[in-house]
Amino acid sequence: GAREDATAAAGPAFTVGAPDTGQFPFDVWGRLLGRIWRRPPHDVMTQGRAGGYPPLRRAIADYLRRVRAVACDADQVLITSGAQQALDLVVRLLLDPGDAVWVENPGYSGLRGAVVAAGATPVPVPVDAEGLSIRDGRRLAPAARLAAVTPSHQFPLGVVMSLRRRLALLDWAHDNDAWIVEDDYDSEYRYDGQPIAALQGLEASRHGGPGRVIYVGTFSKVLFPALRVGYLVVPPDLAPAIVRARRALDDHPSVIAQPVLATFIEDGYFTGHIRRMRALYAARQRALLAAAARHLDGLLEVDDDETGLHLLARLTPAVAARMSDTEAAARAAAHGVTVAPLSSYDSDDPGRQGLLLGYAGVAEAEIRAGAERLAAALQG
Amino acid sequence: GAREDATAAAGPAFTVGAPDTGQFPFDVWGRLLGRIWRRPPHDVMTQGRAGGYPPLRRAIADYLRRVRAVACDADQVLITSGAQQALDLVVRLLLDPGDAVWVENPGYSGLRGAVVAAGATPVPVPVDAEGLSIRDGRRLAPAARLAAVTPSHQFPLGVVMSLRRRLALLDWAHDNDAWIVEDDYDSEYRYDGQPIAALQGLEASRHGGPGRVIYVGTFSKVLFPALRVGYLVVPPDLAPAIVRARRALDDHPSVIAQPVLATFIEDGYFTGHIRRMRALYAARQRALLAAAARHLDGLLEVDDDETGLHLLARLTPAVAARMSDTEAAARAAAHGVTVAPLSSYDSDDPGRQGLLLGYAGVAEAEIRAGAERLAAALQG
Repeated sequence: GAREDATAAAGPAFTVGAPDTGQFPFDVWGRLLGRIWRRPPHDVMTQGRAGGYPPLRRAIADYLRRVRAVACDADQVLITSGAQQALDLVVRLLLDPGDAVWVENPGYSGLRGAVVAAGATPVPVPVDAEGLSIRDGRRLAPAARLAAVTPSHQFPLGVVMSLRRRLALLDWAHDNDAWIVEDDYDSEYRYDGQPIAALQGLEASRHGGPGRVIYVGTFSKVLFPALRVGYLVVPPDLAPAIVRARRALDDHPSVIAQPVLATFIEDGYFTGHIRRMRALYAARQRALLAAAARHLDGLLEVDDDETGLHLLARLTPAVAARMSDTEAAARAAAHGVTVAPLSSYDSDDPGRQGLLLGYAGVAEAEIRAGAERLAAALQG
Repeated sequence: GAREDATAAAGPAFTVGAPDTGQFPFDVWGRLLGRIWRRPPHDVMTQGRAGGYPPLRRAIADYLRRVRAVACDADQVLITSGAQQALDLVVRLLLDPGDAVWVENPGYSGLRGAVVAAGATPVPVPVDAEGLSIRDGRRLAPAARLAAVTPSHQFPLGVVMSLRRRLALLDWAHDNDAWIVEDDYDSEYRYDGQPIAALQGLEASRHGGPGRVIYVGTFSKVLFPALRVGYLVVPPDLAPAIVRARRALDDHPSVIAQPVLATFIEDGYFTGHIRRMRALYAARQRALLAAAARHLDGLLEVDDDETGLHLLARLTPAVAARMSDTEAAARAAAHGVTVAPLSSYDSDDPGRQGLLLGYAGVAEAEIRAGAERLAAALQG
């Protein structure tokens, strides 16, 4: 009715993966854009176009070596228009129609879309407390050509892949000449505990010879999604073929943002912004946990998470007996709160019912108000 | 030897399709970038992301209606990262593996690459003095699902498709539920004669019902290639499907340049820049024709062209008896002059031997020096 519509317009959106773009230092960004483009460096127009602007590739390689223990130099870094294009490029180049691909279940739907668009077949492989189950993968699709994983922070469950599983996955790929795509989508936001090194770096110490791991990163969650800059880190011998493949897609990445982003990283704005956002988002996660303890007890089970921009809230048995997570999300929407049902990321496990609460873009007062509304929706 | 190397370093590059980026008003561009991004409009971050930034779509629709007689409104305009991505999107969405596609012969190799990447089969169709031969197309691949053409200025021959052929092509597409992709890659640069309306606009007056023409444009040749902004104009009922298809590619176009480009068009900088470049490039074409008459007589036959950024220089029989155009281009390179052989755009006609001379990015003094060097290379 009219009252519900009015309520709906006012509530918070717990959008998954959305940073708080209002916090981004657009004053600095605009100043750098203006300064660089009023007199663009000559090499912006001419150099290394297909792989990206060389100074940006160097800045990313430096950052990844230092912060994520990725083993790479700048020639292995290829600039893309986001993680989605990076995934699309890789699957188009490496897969033939009909090839099987291990994808995490539950997992990121954009990856499955890219696999299907390449004519390959995504094979959902269960994720448990140690991450993707290599044993299940070997059973379901032993001849898979590629495995796509989020080992640092499984999307959407938040699991960190165990060392045992990491080694088993690397061994499987090397034994079968298969590829691993490591999507490291939000690991900048680690609030507590030891840093988790990238799987890509582990490979370098475990296996000699040509690498099988392709690392995918994006600036969408660290800066702002509308930027559309991401990157691949590929084994050295694969880089020329990826560059050729992208010519059939969109020739080369736009250079408008690239020199600005390179300067933004080199001059320390990048790590400064991450540091500020890490503190802000950690506080928002605490606010969400506190609000959930106060308002959602008995309705949702919310665990903390050392990493990321969202929390997974499982429906309690009492709620699950009354509604599915899809229905819970619809009721939340009617109360003005946007949440995503866990089952929308899941191919075949109706037993796992939950809501994903993206808290990074929501101020603390709104988080509390949202938790109250969510409670009203689920008590219904 | 050393002398040739030294010479080679000094010569001009008659690069096909390359505008003179040194002429672009980067002072204005940098100022707009800085102004807009220091305080980005809220809707840049939130609105209509997958299809592009609405004010830019409106500005392009206004421009195309007025200047190119394209029948469209803003909802039909979809922003891409250049013409190559536009072509890739269309062929991926509209074609199934094995589908035949009429491509112009000679023609743009990037299009063939996109068709092959989609698993479809490019069928080269001869181009004569009236443009692509519909009769040959019907004979070679009557069941083709798509025809890709450059009717305003055939690439690379420069032919304008006749009205008779345009109508025959439209009728073929409507009779066979096939698609036409109209690549209007450089028609802003028309120096003389009547403006040539887009095929897309002719369809609207010829046929009722759903449209079959997809119009592709790019800002690469009007502004600068590294910008990577292009667009599609699609029939209204096709727009939602194209937007969905692009999510599997790269989600949505970067917004960094879009609001700036919208302002650049709305405030008249765009048409002002085109007007200035049209005068400059017309003068360069005249300089190239004069230099060819003076230095290349008996070696190359160079015709003027009312449109575009390059001229086609056919090898005279005397030269063709001594070398192929590929060899001529290699000799030119050894004399420090970059030119593209016509046969590199041609699937199967060794009788058509020529060099493409892109003059837009070359100053007049260099054009004259380049013609002298080219003469020395071909006299050998």
